[in-house]
Amino acid sequence: MDPIRIAVVGMGKIARDQHLPAIAGNRAFSLAATVSPRDSGIEGVPHLRSLDALLEEGPAIDAVALCTPPQVRYDLAAQALARGIHVFLEKPPGATLAEVHALSAQAERTGASLFASWHSRFAAGVAPARAWLAERRIDSVKVIWREDVRVWHPGQAWIWEPGGLGVFDPGINALSIITHILPRPFFLSEATLEIPENRAAPIAADLHFRDTRGAPIHMDLDWRQTGPQSWDVLVETDAGTLKLAHGGAVLTLPSETVRNEDHEYPGLYARFATLVTGGRSDVDVSPLTLVADAFLRGTRLTTEAFFD
Amino acid sequence: MDPIRIAVVGMGKIARDQHLPAIAGNRAFSLAATVSPRDSGIEGVPHLRSLDALLEEGPAIDAVALCTPPQVRYDLAAQALARGIHVFLEKPPGATLAEVHALSAQAERTGASLFASWHSRFAAGVAPARAWLAERRIDSVKVIWREDVRVWHPGQAWIWEPGGLGVFDPGINALSIITHILPRPFFLSEATLEIPENRAAPIAADLHFRDTRGAPIHMDLDWRQTGPQSWDVLVETDAGTLKLAHGGAVLTLPSETVRNEDHEYPGLYARFATLVTGGRSDVDVSPLTLVADAFLRGTRLTTEAFFD
Repeated sequence: MDPIRIAVVGMGKIARDQHLPAIAGNRAFSLAATVSPRDSGIEGVPHLRSLDALLEEGPAIDAVALCTPPQVRYDLAAQALARGIHVFLEKPPGATLAEVHALSAQAERTGASLFASWHSRFAAGVAPARAWLAERRIDSVKVIWREDVRVWHPGQAWIWEPGGLGVFDPGINALSIITHILPRPFFLSEATLEIPENRAAPIAADLHFRDTRGAPIHMDLDWRQTGPQSWDVLVETDAGTLKLAHGGAVLTLPSETVRNEDHEYPGLYARFATLVTGGRSDVDVSPLTLVADAFLRGTRLTTEAFFD
Repeated sequence: MDPIRIAVVGMGKIARDQHLPAIAGNRAFSLAATVSPRDSGIEGVPHLRSLDALLEEGPAIDAVALCTPPQVRYDLAAQALARGIHVFLEKPPGATLAEVHALSAQAERTGASLFASWHSRFAAGVAPARAWLAERRIDSVKVIWREDVRVWHPGQAWIWEPGGLGVFDPGINALSIITHILPRPFFLSEATLEIPENRAAPIAADLHFRDTRGAPIHMDLDWRQTGPQSWDVLVETDAGTLKLAHGGAVLTLPSETVRNEDHEYPGLYARFATLVTGGRSDVDVSPLTLVADAFLRGTRLTTEAFFD
């Protein structure tokens, strides 16, 4: 089969660090073009200033990976889907839930594949964690996601704007993991969001969820962590404690520790190829739904101003 | 067929003004009990202090109508569904989207009917508006929903708490209408929420949506309106202007004005009887999704303190 000709739109850090290598490492794809208004692209690959320009002038493409900030992603995705072009959405899949539902309906109509990607679900420990938890009674869950925003999101102004998610930008990775590995649905019961007085989005959040059997799930998100960083999930069960550390990369079970190589983005692109080949979509908005619920229901506290 | 034995839980204003008369007027139902912790119920009908007490001591029921504030509704609904009891949810169906999704999944498992009701969809002008718009090109939509909170929600503290919706409590009625009558999905592009400095929920909101063809939808919500109140929807189309006034009760088309008797709650109970009899559920969360999106994406402004 011919490789899927894909264009990467939005040539920021995540595109360069993750998408381009993952595409280069997967024979199901060939990188047809890169798109970004301000950037020069990469050696030997056609570079366009906009998706409009690409669709008008070519080269021909079968798929796009949208790595722009979420606030502008809907129009790009809708434009691509309208032409039957398959769409890979970086996380979060949109700035609102309703726009993602609309894209999903559009993909169904046009027959193009839409993939709302959650890279953390492809971290090495996640699939075995899910399998192990499927047969356990969940007693409680603790998520600690504390990182230094100055290290991981230097100068990314959009992340602090309305429609950016603030600390939920990394936090949604944790939510994408726990919505995937926990055997029962869960929902928010209480939340506190701390918003810097000079920003629109939270810098920290304390979230209490419970699952449909009443098991408490506590989530501690903080962007002010200096020194060691934490991206850990602890699940207490009737068969002992499961720990997923390093953002899902390292799984510790009562009996063993499982380490595998990182394959988040290679895993995403393998999945996207399967969807495109099979004519299917995969749009799970549950992590974004939980974030919207936190904004809807959470108590807001104003905290000290944040400067990059 | 025997009537559906229904209990009304949460005996506030909406239960007394709307639910009890609608139940009394529909032979498919018999009012089996009322439930509320502080209230004495009504003459001749068993009254219980809690749903627990009702389920333990009887009388036997087939269905419950949950008219409590949304923050406590999930547990009541889950408890009823677990026993195969059909559930009618006042609007909004929950304090979060995820809890409603969980209830929906639970209803599917247990075979009980779950109805997320939106009373404004049964306003007299709404069904003919929907039929008329189905074949029109929508050019723009304007929603003006301005009322006096002191008149309509006197002393309702829960409405201002996190999980209460503030001005979106009436505003979600408008959203339930336009999600029903407009032929295309739409989503938020920009929003400003005004929050009184002593409250957690907005007192006013200015919302810009657009539909999947780009038609702008502007919504003006305000709870500070004294004097004449406005609950109007104006839709500009290729065939002229449609106006739904008085919360959907009066429809004006280019050719005629349609007035019918109010039948919102009778319409809801007729629908609920159909669902129960047919073993089906009806859980459309799109109005609440749009509200969550406004909280997620909107810009917040602090405005002057509000006192009842």
